[in-house]
Amino acid sequence: MALAEFDLIKRYFALHKPQHPFNQLGIGDDCALLSLPANHQLAVTTDTMVENVHFFADVDPQQLGHKLLAVNLSDLAAMGAEPFAVTLALTLPKVDESWLQAFAAGFIGLAQQFHVDLIGGDTTSGPLTLTVQAMGTVPQGRALLRSEAKVGDLICVTGELGNAGLGLKINQGYACNDPESALARFNQPQPRIAEGLALRGIANACIDISDGLAADLRHILQQSQVGACLDWQQLPLSAQVSDYIEQTGDWRMPLIAGDDYELCFTVPAEFVPKLPVGCQCVGVIEAEPGLRVDRAGMIEVFEAKGFEHFS
Amino acid sequence: MALAEFDLIKRYFALHKPQHPFNQLGIGDDCALLSLPANHQLAVTTDTMVENVHFFADVDPQQLGHKLLAVNLSDLAAMGAEPFAVTLALTLPKVDESWLQAFAAGFIGLAQQFHVDLIGGDTTSGPLTLTVQAMGTVPQGRALLRSEAKVGDLICVTGELGNAGLGLKINQGYACNDPESALARFNQPQPRIAEGLALRGIANACIDISDGLAADLRHILQQSQVGACLDWQQLPLSAQVSDYIEQTGDWRMPLIAGDDYELCFTVPAEFVPKLPVGCQCVGVIEAEPGLRVDRAGMIEVFEAKGFEHFS
Repeated sequence: MALAEFDLIKRYFALHKPQHPFNQLGIGDDCALLSLPANHQLAVTTDTMVENVHFFADVDPQQLGHKLLAVNLSDLAAMGAEPFAVTLALTLPKVDESWLQAFAAGFIGLAQQFHVDLIGGDTTSGPLTLTVQAMGTVPQGRALLRSEAKVGDLICVTGELGNAGLGLKINQGYACNDPESALARFNQPQPRIAEGLALRGIANACIDISDGLAADLRHILQQSQVGACLDWQQLPLSAQVSDYIEQTGDWRMPLIAGDDYELCFTVPAEFVPKLPVGCQCVGVIEAEPGLRVDRAGMIEVFEAKGFEHFS
Repeated sequence: MALAEFDLIKRYFALHKPQHPFNQLGIGDDCALLSLPANHQLAVTTDTMVENVHFFADVDPQQLGHKLLAVNLSDLAAMGAEPFAVTLALTLPKVDESWLQAFAAGFIGLAQQFHVDLIGGDTTSGPLTLTVQAMGTVPQGRALLRSEAKVGDLICVTGELGNAGLGLKINQGYACNDPESALARFNQPQPRIAEGLALRGIANACIDISDGLAADLRHILQQSQVGACLDWQQLPLSAQVSDYIEQTGDWRMPLIAGDDYELCFTVPAEFVPKLPVGCQCVGVIEAEPGLRVDRAGMIEVFEAKGFEHFS
């Protein structure tokens, strides 16, 4: 990174020496240097957000900074990993100082909330494209995988479903009383780090809901070679989402809308009393492949998929 | 990542279980899981390449795949780190199968040469933007930093200087006998991993030459709070670069041209006999701040800087 770029980043990202003890050398050399505690694994994930694909040019830059980091931390939460470091690759069409300041405030604000250091990055000119790699630790062998769901496990979720989907619809013109909570979940999702840590040793399989419950649960089913039946009436829905379904008849929305960034996990029935506050059981893992939804006793096979680029 | 995207990547990147023993879980879950050997640090770096900024649309995709990985591995080499894992964030305007196949061949070919696994990534649609994060190990406390140059150290480089700069000029129309080696250095740089490893315990400070010797050496000088004098006549130049200078009078080119991805390092004089084959001493670290160049006894202060985005 050239000096002018480094100055730019330094100014807006308030860079100083890393705070987390695992981060021994931060930005300013060819590489950052990290140390891990003994008997721990490093969990690594990366996600990109692109203008006009994941967000529009008029997005609030502070919310964008928050969301970019949140979607990456959410992947760590889904492994039961504890975040401590991120890198940020920023491709910017121009230097817009007020935009950068707000973007950095959203990004760094969330990073500080979770004691995560920005330990490296690259800044280039070009169409607005944002890539984060997030790193966390998990005790050896205790990560929550997609491949460990067992027949008979209960399927549970943190928080509510469909709020982000409703937020998107509100942004697109849907009128709704009290829209703030749905908009907040769409614009500024909260990664479920504490819940992911609490699920170590309790959950068998886990994933975060980025593409919708149905699509993400399907990853668990395929990698665990099992099937599932969801009980629609157990889905945790906000009053606004319930109203939306009542008005539109669109009962599939909380199953197919993405961006909630809640966790979906499977758990043996005996561990249900140990679940973190706010979790809800919404179905059961079955031997028969495929995903089914039980709507007041009417069981139907559910085929809908999440969003796919290039499809 | 949605399934169709995963299939796409899988097909062209020939994904299988990671080969390196540090990589315990690769692509296919929310995160990859890595383990480090005891008493080692993780070195982490990230670099982005953007169409029309770092390369043009007609670039050979195999060479692009190689170069994208090479510039990241070069940062690990400059720390004396041994690479083992990379992630790849691909933003693609469309799925061009022959382009992807060639790009993946260049990327994976170089990765295999250095026993590096592709352990994660993200694929999105948008303007062509490529971000790699590379990870390597270094024994605790033995990384080669920019900040450790000492007055009296000799300044050395691996390989030759200015070949990539000449390659760029050839691409821009400069006529040259035997242009292949210069073009190869520009299009497919070789990260100096073996040299970086051999310099542990020998070099005091090290950086890779991405922005030109003068600009990159300046980072060492600033972070080590020292100055330097380069002996122009000691610069290792290919016959083609020497011819270019003779024809054009542009003696600064090997000092300011980027993209060579050689290492520049400083070393106490007593360790010079231990240097890896192909290294050349080109100057000395001095107490007086700033960078000077000695051209046959004429010493001049050298001000030129490397390429800066947004400047």
